[in-house]
Amino acid sequence: MKTQNPDFREAARAIFHKAPFIADLGIVLADLGPGWCETVLPVAPKHLQQDGYVHAGVQATMADHTAGCAAGTLVSANEMVLTAEFKINLLRPALGDRIRCRATVLKQGKTLIVAESEIHAIRDGVEKLAAKATVTLAPVRK
Amino acid sequence: MKTQNPDFREAARAIFHKAPFIADLGIVLADLGPGWCETVLPVAPKHLQQDGYVHAGVQATMADHTAGCAAGTLVSANEMVLTAEFKINLLRPALGDRIRCRATVLKQGKTLIVAESEIHAIRDGVEKLAAKATVTLAPVRK
Amino acid sequence: MKTQNPDFREAARAIFHKAPFIADLGIVLADLGPGWCETVLPVAPKHLQQDGYVHAGVQATMADHTAGCAAGTLVSANEMVLTAEFKINLLRPALGDRIRCRATVLKQGKTLIVAESEIHAIRDGVEKLAAKATVTLAPVRK
Amino acid sequence: MKTQNPDFREAARAIFHKAPFIADLGIVLADLGPGWCETVLPVAPKHLQQDGYVHAGVQATMADHTAGCAAGTLVSANEMVLTAEFKINLLRPALGDRIRCRATVLKQGKTLIVAESEIHAIRDGVEKLAAKATVTLAPVRK
Repeated sequence: MKTQNPDFREAARAIFHKAPFIADLGIVLADLGPGWCETVLPVAPKHLQQDGYVHAGVQATMADHTAGCAAGTLVSANEMVLTAEFKINLLRPALGDRIRCRATVLKQGKTLIVAESEIHAIRDGVEKLAAKATVTLAPVRK
Repeated sequence: MKTQNPDFREAARAIFHKAPFIADLGIVLADLGPGWCETVLPVAPKHLQQDGYVHAGVQATMADHTAGCAAGTLVSANEMVLTAEFKINLLRPALGDRIRCRATVLKQGKTLIVAESEIHAIRDGVEKLAAKATVTLAPVRK
Repeated sequence: MKTQNPDFREAARAIFHKAPFIADLGIVLADLGPGWCETVLPVAPKHLQQDGYVHAGVQATMADHTAGCAAGTLVSANEMVLTAEFKINLLRPALGDRIRCRATVLKQGKTLIVAESEIHAIRDGVEKLAAKATVTLAPVRK
Repeated sequence: MKTQNPDFREAARAIFHKAPFIADLGIVLADLGPGWCETVLPVAPKHLQQDGYVHAGVQATMADHTAGCAAGTLVSANEMVLTAEFKINLLRPALGDRIRCRATVLKQGKTLIVAESEIHAIRDGVEKLAAKATVTLAPVRK
């Protein structure tokens, strides 16, 4: 993966932290590099659905935002990325004290960037794949 | 659409309100019937992404949870539904003071229920289709 | 829906018929207008899967190509559309002597067009919704 | 991955070859194991779309059928699998003399099996990732 922005770390971090919804949920940017990003969420009662599992919407938000950050590391300084669509499969009940998301760019194009996000639920130190998403993003002028 | 639960209204409402994440976001159940559900979200600053639009994760959460409620109106009293997967297309920037979501069941099966959710952004009384999702749900024993 | 090509009928028809795979399958263009297209397939033994139903791949091909034609009615004379991604739900076994597909554009954008395709199986004159797809297409220079 | 059928090889092969549409297209089963399957298609003119690339419908068919075979290696002798839904991203134009598809099961459940399919186009000995799909399948009684 080749980034078009030498200052991609600062640029991607800045955009990541500007989203109030992500700050409100408590999703933390753990690390990033050209074409990938990793985030963590300490699970709180407010993140749960009716059955005590982490809500699919929380997982979808992490999958989308982390993919956006991964794609954002590749675009030029005057661009940002917007999600065009995504699809997520909820594979196992997300049960744990922490959720980890890793997004990786699969294809870097001029008009579209496609990334994959894997969501892992961590419980008592044991990590399980809870969900997997495919995210299509469009670079746009800032 | 034929429901298998004569008390589907109370059952679907009860499950809808049990999810802490939905209460935390402020998503309100507006109305429901056999095979459909409608929800509303008064937009607050915490729902936004970096560009001032409602975050894709908020829209995805509404699309998923409203579809779950629509599917939940159809199952028997000892069942609930879990999302297996969903796909959402973000069609236009969601800009407005209110978001409305309408979910409709497309196919009612024994092992899978498929629903569609439409997300509308309402700004100064004008409503625009912001996103559309397809949600696959599985009925499970409570 | 506003087309950018006054000769959209001829343009869309010409591109539709240029695809050898569609001719080989026997998919016929029934009708089209600005932002929509309808196709028909007389079912033959070669279209079936192991259980006697029309193969999901045949339905996916119809959903994709019909959506491409619907989107193609909207672009300018020097553009064509390419599929970026699609998602299809197989709702009921596709059993019948004819398959009908109707595609409608949901959102017409400069860089992306989103369309929906509905697949109906027709058996003894009775029509049933067999599948529904969402297709994301990108206009490109010819 | 644990198969529930000691004769999974013969069972999966038998079902693979029973689909007339796959035989008509010329898709060949290359190899399989518990939870995975690989197929190959020698590209012929009839597989192409209007621009000379392999039609998205051909790729979707391979992605779906190969995933079905991968899932089919895991179920018991009196079960087969049906596709509930799939989503495919067309990442690069599929240009080449051969197409190779590898499907791997991501999650093996009782009511749903989720698999991923990667489509590679091979041209002059060079292989490129052309498409990636996520496929949700349901085991059913034969």
